[in-house]
Amino acid sequence: MVHEEIELKGHVIDSLTLSKVLDAIIQSGGTYEIREFRIGKTRAEPSYARLWVSVEDRASLDRLLKELGHYGARELPARDADLRPTPAAGVAPDDFAVSTNLPTEIRLKGRWVPLVPEEMDRAIVVSRDLGSARPVPLYLLRKGDLVACGRRGIRVAPLRQPGGEAPRDPFVFMSASASAERPARHAIRTLADAMKAARRRKGKSLFVAGPAIVHSGGSEILAALIRAGWVSVLFAGNALATHDIENSLYGTSLGMCLADGARAPHGHAHHLRAINAIRKAGSIAEAVKRRIVKSGIMHALVTKRVPFVLAGSIRDDGPLPDVIADVRLAQEAMRAHLAGVEVAVMVATALHAVATGNLLSARVYTVAVDIDAARVTELIDRGTAQAVGIVMDAASFLAALARSLGIRAGS
Amino acid sequence: MVHEEIELKGHVIDSLTLSKVLDAIIQSGGTYEIREFRIGKTRAEPSYARLWVSVEDRASLDRLLKELGHYGARELPARDADLRPTPAAGVAPDDFAVSTNLPTEIRLKGRWVPLVPEEMDRAIVVSRDLGSARPVPLYLLRKGDLVACGRRGIRVAPLRQPGGEAPRDPFVFMSASASAERPARHAIRTLADAMKAARRRKGKSLFVAGPAIVHSGGSEILAALIRAGWVSVLFAGNALATHDIENSLYGTSLGMCLADGARAPHGHAHHLRAINAIRKAGSIAEAVKRRIVKSGIMHALVTKRVPFVLAGSIRDDGPLPDVIADVRLAQEAMRAHLAGVEVAVMVATALHAVATGNLLSARVYTVAVDIDAARVTELIDRGTAQAVGIVMDAASFLAALARSLGIRAGS
Amino acid sequence: MVHEEIELKGHVIDSLTLSKVLDAIIQSGGTYEIREFRIGKTRAEPSYARLWVSVEDRASLDRLLKELGHYGARELPARDADLRPTPAAGVAPDDFAVSTNLPTEIRLKGRWVPLVPEEMDRAIVVSRDLGSARPVPLYLLRKGDLVACGRRGIRVAPLRQPGGEAPRDPFVFMSASASAERPARHAIRTLADAMKAARRRKGKSLFVAGPAIVHSGGSEILAALIRAGWVSVLFAGNALATHDIENSLYGTSLGMCLADGARAPHGHAHHLRAINAIRKAGSIAEAVKRRIVKSGIMHALVTKRVPFVLAGSIRDDGPLPDVIADVRLAQEAMRAHLAGVEVAVMVATALHAVATGNLLSARVYTVAVDIDAARVTELIDRGTAQAVGIVMDAASFLAALARSLGIRAGS
Amino acid sequence: MVHEEIELKGHVIDSLTLSKVLDAIIQSGGTYEIREFRIGKTRAEPSYARLWVSVEDRASLDRLLKELGHYGARELPARDADLRPTPAAGVAPDDFAVSTNLPTEIRLKGRWVPLVPEEMDRAIVVSRDLGSARPVPLYLLRKGDLVACGRRGIRVAPLRQPGGEAPRDPFVFMSASASAERPARHAIRTLADAMKAARRRKGKSLFVAGPAIVHSGGSEILAALIRAGWVSVLFAGNALATHDIENSLYGTSLGMCLADGARAPHGHAHHLRAINAIRKAGSIAEAVKRRIVKSGIMHALVTKRVPFVLAGSIRDDGPLPDVIADVRLAQEAMRAHLAGVEVAVMVATALHAVATGNLLSARVYTVAVDIDAARVTELIDRGTAQAVGIVMDAASFLAALARSLGIRAGS
Repeated sequence: MVHEEIELKGHVIDSLTLSKVLDAIIQSGGTYEIREFRIGKTRAEPSYARLWVSVEDRASLDRLLKELGHYGARELPARDADLRPTPAAGVAPDDFAVSTNLPTEIRLKGRWVPLVPEEMDRAIVVSRDLGSARPVPLYLLRKGDLVACGRRGIRVAPLRQPGGEAPRDPFVFMSASASAERPARHAIRTLADAMKAARRRKGKSLFVAGPAIVHSGGSEILAALIRAGWVSVLFAGNALATHDIENSLYGTSLGMCLADGARAPHGHAHHLRAINAIRKAGSIAEAVKRRIVKSGIMHALVTKRVPFVLAGSIRDDGPLPDVIADVRLAQEAMRAHLAGVEVAVMVATALHAVATGNLLSARVYTVAVDIDAARVTELIDRGTAQAVGIVMDAASFLAALARSLGIRAGS
Repeated sequence: MVHEEIELKGHVIDSLTLSKVLDAIIQSGGTYEIREFRIGKTRAEPSYARLWVSVEDRASLDRLLKELGHYGARELPARDADLRPTPAAGVAPDDFAVSTNLPTEIRLKGRWVPLVPEEMDRAIVVSRDLGSARPVPLYLLRKGDLVACGRRGIRVAPLRQPGGEAPRDPFVFMSASASAERPARHAIRTLADAMKAARRRKGKSLFVAGPAIVHSGGSEILAALIRAGWVSVLFAGNALATHDIENSLYGTSLGMCLADGARAPHGHAHHLRAINAIRKAGSIAEAVKRRIVKSGIMHALVTKRVPFVLAGSIRDDGPLPDVIADVRLAQEAMRAHLAGVEVAVMVATALHAVATGNLLSARVYTVAVDIDAARVTELIDRGTAQAVGIVMDAASFLAALARSLGIRAGS
Repeated sequence: MVHEEIELKGHVIDSLTLSKVLDAIIQSGGTYEIREFRIGKTRAEPSYARLWVSVEDRASLDRLLKELGHYGARELPARDADLRPTPAAGVAPDDFAVSTNLPTEIRLKGRWVPLVPEEMDRAIVVSRDLGSARPVPLYLLRKGDLVACGRRGIRVAPLRQPGGEAPRDPFVFMSASASAERPARHAIRTLADAMKAARRRKGKSLFVAGPAIVHSGGSEILAALIRAGWVSVLFAGNALATHDIENSLYGTSLGMCLADGARAPHGHAHHLRAINAIRKAGSIAEAVKRRIVKSGIMHALVTKRVPFVLAGSIRDDGPLPDVIADVRLAQEAMRAHLAGVEVAVMVATALHAVATGNLLSARVYTVAVDIDAARVTELIDRGTAQAVGIVMDAASFLAALARSLGIRAGS
Repeated sequence: MVHEEIELKGHVIDSLTLSKVLDAIIQSGGTYEIREFRIGKTRAEPSYARLWVSVEDRASLDRLLKELGHYGARELPARDADLRPTPAAGVAPDDFAVSTNLPTEIRLKGRWVPLVPEEMDRAIVVSRDLGSARPVPLYLLRKGDLVACGRRGIRVAPLRQPGGEAPRDPFVFMSASASAERPARHAIRTLADAMKAARRRKGKSLFVAGPAIVHSGGSEILAALIRAGWVSVLFAGNALATHDIENSLYGTSLGMCLADGARAPHGHAHHLRAINAIRKAGSIAEAVKRRIVKSGIMHALVTKRVPFVLAGSIRDDGPLPDVIADVRLAQEAMRAHLAGVEVAVMVATALHAVATGNLLSARVYTVAVDIDAARVTELIDRGTAQAVGIVMDAASFLAALARSLGIRAGS
């Protein structure tokens, strides 16, 4: 038998962490003794547990400690992280540690160094001077990069609740899964409060926007939010921008007239004519400048100088000249805008929501809105567990958010 | 070979009726000759076709004519409907004609007599004097009732488009199936126009309401619509009334606090305490009178003297004393309120929407609202083909409808 | 300040019970001291906590203890339950305790008496001799019945995981919410094992069946399961039985030919002709006996003498003579078959699944199958939290279940 | 008033084309006279209509004729298409004709030249010798390319029914929209027949595959279909290939153990380790060759030498070295495999299904399978109107298809 003493800190009871740790020990064939256990006196106060763990042999213990590390457990005394160089560009060492979107620290030369930024599913690359650590996608690894491996010297702090670090936490007893049967109005007011708080702190609010915003008639409301300064940066694809511009040029979206719901004669070609008009102008900004595009979401972004990233996808027509066709470059463009983001609002998009979720820290207050609860569940299951789900159509959500922010916009 | 001349009238092209008729003839092994064909010069003008049909033998011809009758074809010269007495109470003759919700006429003693009211999936019972015809559910057939059988002497007028007889018909080129990708605002404005037109003509607007109206925070908006006189009659179940009263008494719905989204301590029992309070009072009206219930949908109905039917279901708790536990009696209570209904609005209910659709004429302007497009498709597939589908959450829909009707209600 | 010592037993950590209890104390303005805390050494072993609770005044303490009682906490020393007579037939005392579907005990004359059966959302009626307690729906309360009130002397044992008391518990780390992205095959094999284990113990397997079983082509597979003895009792509505008989008589379901997917000429009337044929025979059993119905689900039930309950709903056509039109009588008929049920399988039905869930103990191993994950979530949110969700179409599920049970059935 | 004589040919009644043409004339303020009208004597026989159209002025007439051209109407006598050069690379002339996926002909020097291949939403570029025409995405237009403009000299043949040119057409009376309430078994058998017929003619069957195939446990069935020669080419993304290889290496998908449904310890990192292993090998083919990957879909493709395209998306982790990160290059790689495709089967993918639908001729027999009917509706609404929808989970569908093709595969 081999032994190790481990400790756990934080919201280990209400995040179920303690249960999972004890479970993992039992399942590995080991036993445990609880040497110390203190429960926080208030909800804000963390709990603490110290356990003496015994398992069959060294290999089992290593496997177990590796697993426990992902629940935030760390052995006492702590040891430095194992570092190994990449064998080739774009390839991690076999046993590389995979990052999560939770607050994470790496022990280097006896010091706990934070992973900055927090981003899931990356290799953890450590600087040459062992002074900092950052997450790197596999394809960006350079030959010889020092990568954290195994589980020693890596600790992760469990977060307690959906929604990221909200000002208040109304959903603490609600399951994170989305449902149309739960009242959305309060969640929208809480989001509005979070956006206001972020603005006071000079933090950013990111919007991730799908084309159903335009189809459902929400363009002008989102444009009003942008003009009022509530959107710090916007991520979308070719479709959102195209249908917004189609709407601005022809009053249609997907060929359907938004004013009266009728299908416009020959309307299915409108989106291509809209794209062609922008291609002719050279860029969306140029088309706004030349007064080809005079309203809508993209117009508001350009005139308000709010940055946006349009990421390409294989279903794109055209595409618009502003679309980044290489998805890796698009990911990098998105990543470049994330510093300072405190609130993320994902509206009516599956692809872009998951893509953005992959890049976000779990500390970001994240709200995902879709008419289809299954899409919100998918996002949460993909690791963006902090997301608060709202089941509404895009236009109704944006109208309610605008009202909560004190903006008057036609709906 | 046997022959028959048939004629078709109405929107036989844009309802695909002509295609189906020709198809049916070919599939029965027959041939046809188009003797006369006039296409309406305008969309409002009906078309007309006269066909000479030839098939193998009399039996095939009868089968074919029976089928064609359901597309509105009738043979020339017309013959009276076959009438046969029921063999026993609650049992129709074997070959009984099944009614639809479309305008239908029965030929009796050389006269075309309308089926009144129009109601689908019933036997057609003819009065003793052969002067009138009405649809009767099987279980209400009395021994000896005269029932129309076969297909002779029965003609059905195809309707052209979803939504019933709307003032305008914006959806003519849209598929009837619901989708979250279509703009709802126009459909809501069209509904508001239909409700206004109905009111001018002293016609009724029926609301069919599911409990998600309360869960999503829409109670007060629906109550405002009722107080403003836009609801002529309301159909619902135990759940809608219970959660509305729960909300009025405790501020919760399904135990969730509607004001702040939190789960109320011990809130799951609230709906039962609400039911018990009404049972103690004796009825909802009495509880309103005694000021036990002071707000919400049921309060508005009672104080505004708008009739309602609460139909029982096997998932009911309690139930409230006003709930009709026998579903056949509940159907009859609903049917008793349908005369004069011109507009039907079905919000967030599957069971009650289909049940009401089963009782409605296809001429009623019908709008079905659900967050789940599949539920609207199910309604349409069940025969309520006139329904216009809107994919929205209940509270957002009601708020938008209230705005279109010029009502200011908190949302 | 007033004080009370309380204790908690069971899976208080992995069910989050301890967290909720501490939270409730803090929220009530109180404080606590953990006097004793033992965590179970294995997953099967329960944990134990003893807390000293202090709050402002007696009324707050009473409110708090009432809430804590629902988490299974009980004060030390325990006191008998408060009993009060009903003020009138069908009406509970104001402060009546609402039952849950979890294992529950009532303290009467110093003894903990179990609630039998376990059924949620009922009043708890105690026998005159204080020797037994049973759940009673409000409408069945008789004048003078002794009803448990408040929270004293009532304790509830939290269950840990979805699925009821399964032989094994594969889902312990999975969220209970259903998703199409989780592998169903294992859940089906686990269900098959549970059904086999129940059969060995002479326990019953209940099937709750929706009409989509017939529409999706699963009738013959369910009939094969019945003939092989895997179905002990079946709950359904008019639609399942009607479309099954329609399929047996005409080869169609909702008028669509199941063999080749084509819409049968005039097929929409088939279900009414099927109902009329059974009405003429007098009952389904009589129609089977006279060889009018020769195949399908209902035929298998009748020939195999498996009991069934057909509960009425307001959307019913006909209805079949076997349908119980009064929903309260239907509930009672269902309840009468629940003794001995160890496994419940709910396939493609929203209404009947929730209705049955309302009657089931949380100990019953419950599986809910639907093509729409939202319906399973709704069932779980309604209190049937033990249900394991499987997102599949009905026919595919039944075929996979039949294979797991070693039955060869055409699919 | 100006006049023009136009003619219409084909299934103009059952495709509603005639109705739409007459409607368009009325809406443009014009009138018409039906000069000749012949309805096909059988369903296979086309109909013919000749109309004399009168409108206010030349400009209105041009607009109208342009619209009518999209319904297949052409003026008599026919005139050549208007051709104009592109003003710049990547930009079409303002009035460029937008292609559809229907059979289309361009009139050049008095000859009707077919558009090859049929692909929607492109510019139509004509060869210098005016002998051929092809669809070109905007971004691939070269400066000076000759592009068809306006509506003259372009005719489109309406197709009649969903499913493309099926051997038989069972769905003629069914709406194209998908529903879980329709029997899928027949549609699967029809698909199997279409695949067999395609194979006899040396035609190709294309599969478009989403990762839910792996999650739902369908990998081995799809691999068996590939090994049996039923898959000619496969389109997918990084996720399908990654989770298939994750499953092959670790027995998990998204970290969930497919054999027993349990979440594997630390399983969320499995997919990244799988990607890293392939990156180390250099390619999927190399990993198969080195026996790193020994089973699953990708293994079957490589060993059977079936070509595949993995298109990148912004949500990709890793990615696998075989993934094409530039979405325009990915589109072109997909397009290069479409010649000879007669059957397209899209399973559990929204993004790739719409992307492939954008490239396919409407003549391709297309089946779209998803557990969520809304996704199939979205595909159809995006222009892939020929798609037959099947609402099933991926694994159940593949198992049923394999059985219909006579393949025995574990399910």
